[in-house]
Amino acid sequence: MNIGTYSYEEYVQIVISFHGAVEPGLIIGGLMVDQALKNIPEGEFFNAICETPDCLPDSIQLLTRCTVGNGWLTILDFGKFAVTLYERESGNGVRVYLDPDRLKNWPGINRWFFKHKTTIPKDHDLLMSQIKEAGHSLLGMQNVRVKTGQVNRGEMGPVAICPVCGEAYPVKHGDTCRNCNGESPYLV
Amino acid sequence: MNIGTYSYEEYVQIVISFHGAVEPGLIIGGLMVDQALKNIPEGEFFNAICETPDCLPDSIQLLTRCTVGNGWLTILDFGKFAVTLYERESGNGVRVYLDPDRLKNWPGINRWFFKHKTTIPKDHDLLMSQIKEAGHSLLGMQNVRVKTGQVNRGEMGPVAICPVCGEAYPVKHGDTCRNCNGESPYLV
Repeated sequence: MNIGTYSYEEYVQIVISFHGAVEPGLIIGGLMVDQALKNIPEGEFFNAICETPDCLPDSIQLLTRCTVGNGWLTILDFGKFAVTLYERESGNGVRVYLDPDRLKNWPGINRWFFKHKTTIPKDHDLLMSQIKEAGHSLLGMQNVRVKTGQVNRGEMGPVAICPVCGEAYPVKHGDTCRNCNGESPYLV
Repeated sequence: MNIGTYSYEEYVQIVISFHGAVEPGLIIGGLMVDQALKNIPEGEFFNAICETPDCLPDSIQLLTRCTVGNGWLTILDFGKFAVTLYERESGNGVRVYLDPDRLKNWPGINRWFFKHKTTIPKDHDLLMSQIKEAGHSLLGMQNVRVKTGQVNRGEMGPVAICPVCGEAYPVKHGDTCRNCNGESPYLV
């Protein structure tokens, strides 16, 4: 079984190197991106939507050219294990998701997915082998058309110096930067 | 000049492979993460905050173990070119930012930063060589204490089946998943 352009074992090593550990979500995520890549509409450039910030964004970043930093990957905080790859201009794409109906055939995977953890290392190994065995059979797929205007990252627009901290910030955020208007993640 | 554990040239190649192209923001981002890594407080585990979704998250993901998918990288939509690495428990960390005062010594870099583009390839090459020459001298740094409760990704909590689409979603989102309650990024 291949995942993207990698063998299964190569993909596992790349995941460990990037993500720090090989988790079930990264392997299922790899299968999902692989299936989306094989079914993507024709076109030269495509973007990605990831409907959860957990695990799956890393599979997308490792297997496609879509990353957070280059803006081709949009992450939605929907808590859904689903990835969409779509052609940038038309918005035509394919959405691949983890299908609860298909999970019923795999009690171990089903239990992991709905509890979101495994506590026993032995269970973890069993889970990983079941995921490898189940492969793409866990996945549902549908054609979608993306509202590209809704997901594309907007332009930053003009930049100014914040009068409080003296750093650059987008003028569209107001009279000061967001750090200085009370949203700072740092203790004063 | 090294960037993280890589030589400058190795880092450029890794950026191209991951991000698709080598852009000024990725090189400056690499210098910023490198400086933060060299000045991080003692501790075994650390997380990252990136104050912009543009470019810089990819430098962080390439040079540290903090990624979007593993939850150790928090991205804030503040439009500020700044990265913080902090110890997970205490919140003690170091924040590295692009300092407008220091940019004044480098008119080409200053122009890029405040206009956010270069239109002429020749200018692009000149800009890249100036960034390499300027190196860490562009950067400001400060010690910070992170409000860890504010930036840590919350637990997903219980998962249920959405009665509309039949897929799994976090119960805390309401009676249906966000795709089905009107927030879908797809045309029906």
